[in-house]
Amino acid sequence: MLIVMRQSASDHDVQKVIDRIESLGWEAKKIPGEERVAIGVLRNPGQTDPALFLDIAGVRDVIPVSKPYKLVSREMHPDNTTISLGDGEVVIGGDRLVVMAGPCAVESEKQALDIAREVKKGGALLFRGGAFKPRSSPYSFQGLGRKGLEILAKVREETGLFIVTEATDHDVCDLVEEFSDIIQIGTRNMQNYRLLRRAGQARKPVLLKRGMSATLDEFFMAAEYIMSEGNSQVILCERGIRTFVKHSRNTLDLNAVPFIKRESHLPVVVDPSHAAGRRDQVIPLARAAAATGVDGLIVEVHNDPDRALSDGPQSLYPEQFSEMMQDLRRMNIAM
Amino acid sequence: MLIVMRQSASDHDVQKVIDRIESLGWEAKKIPGEERVAIGVLRNPGQTDPALFLDIAGVRDVIPVSKPYKLVSREMHPDNTTISLGDGEVVIGGDRLVVMAGPCAVESEKQALDIAREVKKGGALLFRGGAFKPRSSPYSFQGLGRKGLEILAKVREETGLFIVTEATDHDVCDLVEEFSDIIQIGTRNMQNYRLLRRAGQARKPVLLKRGMSATLDEFFMAAEYIMSEGNSQVILCERGIRTFVKHSRNTLDLNAVPFIKRESHLPVVVDPSHAAGRRDQVIPLARAAAATGVDGLIVEVHNDPDRALSDGPQSLYPEQFSEMMQDLRRMNIAM
Amino acid sequence: MLIVMRQSASDHDVQKVIDRIESLGWEAKKIPGEERVAIGVLRNPGQTDPALFLDIAGVRDVIPVSKPYKLVSREMHPDNTTISLGDGEVVIGGDRLVVMAGPCAVESEKQALDIAREVKKGGALLFRGGAFKPRSSPYSFQGLGRKGLEILAKVREETGLFIVTEATDHDVCDLVEEFSDIIQIGTRNMQNYRLLRRAGQARKPVLLKRGMSATLDEFFMAAEYIMSEGNSQVILCERGIRTFVKHSRNTLDLNAVPFIKRESHLPVVVDPSHAAGRRDQVIPLARAAAATGVDGLIVEVHNDPDRALSDGPQSLYPEQFSEMMQDLRRMNIAM
Amino acid sequence: MLIVMRQSASDHDVQKVIDRIESLGWEAKKIPGEERVAIGVLRNPGQTDPALFLDIAGVRDVIPVSKPYKLVSREMHPDNTTISLGDGEVVIGGDRLVVMAGPCAVESEKQALDIAREVKKGGALLFRGGAFKPRSSPYSFQGLGRKGLEILAKVREETGLFIVTEATDHDVCDLVEEFSDIIQIGTRNMQNYRLLRRAGQARKPVLLKRGMSATLDEFFMAAEYIMSEGNSQVILCERGIRTFVKHSRNTLDLNAVPFIKRESHLPVVVDPSHAAGRRDQVIPLARAAAATGVDGLIVEVHNDPDRALSDGPQSLYPEQFSEMMQDLRRMNIAM
Repeated sequence: MLIVMRQSASDHDVQKVIDRIESLGWEAKKIPGEERVAIGVLRNPGQTDPALFLDIAGVRDVIPVSKPYKLVSREMHPDNTTISLGDGEVVIGGDRLVVMAGPCAVESEKQALDIAREVKKGGALLFRGGAFKPRSSPYSFQGLGRKGLEILAKVREETGLFIVTEATDHDVCDLVEEFSDIIQIGTRNMQNYRLLRRAGQARKPVLLKRGMSATLDEFFMAAEYIMSEGNSQVILCERGIRTFVKHSRNTLDLNAVPFIKRESHLPVVVDPSHAAGRRDQVIPLARAAAATGVDGLIVEVHNDPDRALSDGPQSLYPEQFSEMMQDLRRMNIAM
Repeated sequence: MLIVMRQSASDHDVQKVIDRIESLGWEAKKIPGEERVAIGVLRNPGQTDPALFLDIAGVRDVIPVSKPYKLVSREMHPDNTTISLGDGEVVIGGDRLVVMAGPCAVESEKQALDIAREVKKGGALLFRGGAFKPRSSPYSFQGLGRKGLEILAKVREETGLFIVTEATDHDVCDLVEEFSDIIQIGTRNMQNYRLLRRAGQARKPVLLKRGMSATLDEFFMAAEYIMSEGNSQVILCERGIRTFVKHSRNTLDLNAVPFIKRESHLPVVVDPSHAAGRRDQVIPLARAAAATGVDGLIVEVHNDPDRALSDGPQSLYPEQFSEMMQDLRRMNIAM
Repeated sequence: MLIVMRQSASDHDVQKVIDRIESLGWEAKKIPGEERVAIGVLRNPGQTDPALFLDIAGVRDVIPVSKPYKLVSREMHPDNTTISLGDGEVVIGGDRLVVMAGPCAVESEKQALDIAREVKKGGALLFRGGAFKPRSSPYSFQGLGRKGLEILAKVREETGLFIVTEATDHDVCDLVEEFSDIIQIGTRNMQNYRLLRRAGQARKPVLLKRGMSATLDEFFMAAEYIMSEGNSQVILCERGIRTFVKHSRNTLDLNAVPFIKRESHLPVVVDPSHAAGRRDQVIPLARAAAATGVDGLIVEVHNDPDRALSDGPQSLYPEQFSEMMQDLRRMNIAM
Repeated sequence: MLIVMRQSASDHDVQKVIDRIESLGWEAKKIPGEERVAIGVLRNPGQTDPALFLDIAGVRDVIPVSKPYKLVSREMHPDNTTISLGDGEVVIGGDRLVVMAGPCAVESEKQALDIAREVKKGGALLFRGGAFKPRSSPYSFQGLGRKGLEILAKVREETGLFIVTEATDHDVCDLVEEFSDIIQIGTRNMQNYRLLRRAGQARKPVLLKRGMSATLDEFFMAAEYIMSEGNSQVILCERGIRTFVKHSRNTLDLNAVPFIKRESHLPVVVDPSHAAGRRDQVIPLARAAAATGVDGLIVEVHNDPDRALSDGPQSLYPEQFSEMMQDLRRMNIAM
């Protein structure tokens, strides 16, 4: 942390800042400049709050310097993390884009299997589909629960697709861990710390979705929660952020992709379906995300989206999914 | 929902929209205009997704009309809801502003009692303080847990202040319900549906904080979750939203206050401490919130904020709290 | 500026950063820490772009420290600036809240005079009203131009109210300067630098509205443009910012008020009408703004808002304006 | 516009709404529903303000339906607009991506020519470079003015590249129109209506940059200003929007691309340089934008970015520009 003093700050003001720093057990380092003095703070924990010094007379500005995350940082782990499924049949974070596709929610065995066969044909390597659904209305379909997970297991058995599905709460995490290949943590749960800790104890990789208005520091801290419990198999998923715009449900933040790649060693996937919230924007955003060099895409596909029990209107039809995959091949994306 | 057709839409396009509406079991109502046709959708559930019709040829725009919430709405309950504590010693939602104050986290019996006596002297009617703390870093202090709740019970006993404290997860809700007078649900949990449902089964009032980037519709739907389980004692808390600004941690959204009052019958309180994130903005924001006519304020106060185990830099000193209360009295706010 | 190196940065990397700093004619100051080296940059101009160093190997982060504005800063001018109109009959930035009120646009002499008499009766000291109107549609009423200014002069003559009115472009600034007491610069023109420079040459005070998504640094820099041309009579006006919310046209940013007061010596006024965009939120926001301690309010009032040629729906009726003024008196706001 | 009444609205309330609509000269159309009445408004101008009806008793919600723009809309002009330069040597809005590249500002003849030769070699068809520069600091380099335009003319003569350059104000528009092939209007001027009108009278195409926080409706209305004066040669440029994120200067809004294509017939280009604000994000964003199917890219390139007089840190080096172009070819983008 750097504390910038006003030009008019007295020696006494400066000393008061230094005293407070030292009384907290940290170290102060005075940096005299042309016009003013600044004071560096050392040995403080990463998440020190800048406001801690703002009320001392003579302080103009307090600027955080250290980052609060460690395990997530590329500094601690210079090489890319890769995540292997099965006997390395699928590698996330390697040279190839991995596509995950399927319906928002598992609705029935027939529905799941039909869609799974379609997305497999198109080139998907993982099947996505929720058995537990966090819904913004208490009156909406909330998922099939355990039955949904059993259907997912059947999908894997019949199609060879790996399974990614959401754990909406720590108390369903045992079940989800048992049946899935990747445990998904949803946007609304990005700061559900009990769930993050539980996922950190799982022996399955975790796909962590960015919160709707999370900064990347907050996103990294959520991943740090998981990693601090011992699970280093974390995939970061950008899925659109909340902005002032009205023409889409969210705004896909592709600026985040090169930034995450620079700052962290974890793989990054993009969810164009939730970023769009409407079918007609999904394919262009999927192509755009692939073009930035992400490690994977997670896309909603439904064979009868008008009747889907959740998020139908943003699901691709199977033929659109094929079209999307052909677009990616035409762009020479390795898959 | 209203579906607006393009000027160029053919009768066939219009018919296709009507067919889809009817195939979903809803009712279509054609509204011919000068330049174009619109189609009203009736008997659909409130949360219908506009994107459901966007891919039909000839559709220009789909506009949601109904609101997804019911119990929260003033339409269902024209009179203001009031929430009584004790034998009506404190009424939230009545004619008087109710002030809740205390530290971010309960740290020790002495700390809690010292602060409680100060805020009581200043005029607070409730004591706030977390026993369970959701922290953005896994390396930060996470609260005293059950021990913290016992300290809160002692505070009530010794000072007569009622207690509001956070339940961070459904599995601590039993405990929090037992020890508190109002169960708080935090910003990051506004869409933790398991917790909302559990709070809906509690026999204590719930103070629900608005999510950092929640629209009021989403905020109302979170309250609807609680109410749909049978608990109608919900207090809505505005605590600042995430915006592009850099001069404060959040932006207090006071436009929301008159809107909530118009649209809902539930009481509204404001948290100026989290809205500011820095001590020097808390008092002006508290005065501003009171001036809009809110039902309560929830403010962080600490007797040694520099050493507070969480959120110290946004806590008022006890003498600042007194000053704030005097400001409110000078403004003729009934308390 | 502070350049934070990675832990893994080599001496060579550090030297390269220092070389670049020195080759730009600035001064580098190495600050060794426990885990990593940081490099302070001195003698650089305030607005140095952090990205300038991001592509050097070993650089982790670049953090701006200095502020680009000078004349606006309280450091340069520790006392509050006050702005006197007439022979000091009205002082903005002093001990009293100054209320400016009137229609969005001047529509006719009768309309202007009728409203002026009403707002004068209510306690306003300035009359607001646009003769030149920036309208988002080319098909909307664009103002009466010179004729509108003449009407404003007549309003001053007949009522004794001072006049604040907008200059929408540098080429109407001569006219506006001649007829008004305060030259207003609108939100959309906050970064119209030609206009800012011209206003900086005027011998009338300037009321500068914050851009819809301007940070306070950008707002201050716009004021700096005016002041750098020699006009130090600048009033800063907060009028709501663009956020994700849907329940109001903008979100009034009252966190900005204490921040501006801390950082700058210029007076601050708030426009609750544009912050709300709808009549039913204007009075609560006006009270809230006054409660934060702003120096003035600028409020839209119209005697026939349904037929107003612009922004009618956010204008108060004269009797609502009186009610607002009574509310402020009841709050003991000095006016 | 659609006015939704409360369930409790009386016949009298409904009549009052109808009366107000009719007194404004518009037409009211009552739409009875199951639970409540809605009232459609016909023959009103596109930009009617919803707040106009909010204060009538019994009104719950007012929902805009019509769009305020006409000429910009695909409804008025179903085919794509294409813009030809020279004898059709370059077509914007056709089958090929058109790349525009060059420095932020023209600094000298040598600088401009050197960079122009590099970007031409890389495959650019237009040269960009500012002769007039809008700068957020009054103390920054403001451009070479007329001399800069003469240098641009020389660049065209020597390299055959067409020229796009900014008109920062209406009073330099004559000059810019004379020397350039495309007149650029910058982000901060998107709602400078005097300039828009002047550009609408020009006989050169206009590249209009989206405002930093402009909705697409506002963006379209700015284009409508230009078109309403008779100039239908408008190119829309997405350049990143202001959001809460801290990892980039802006957030590139690629969701906007398919939406604009659906709603308007005008060509769309993307500026990845300003969207990023830092060099290391420019190439991934350029690829992403191209992948969505935009009609062009406008990219900053500088041969000595560390010493560039403006926006150096976001400029690509010439060899990075070549790399970007090769990436696009590898993705099979037609250029």
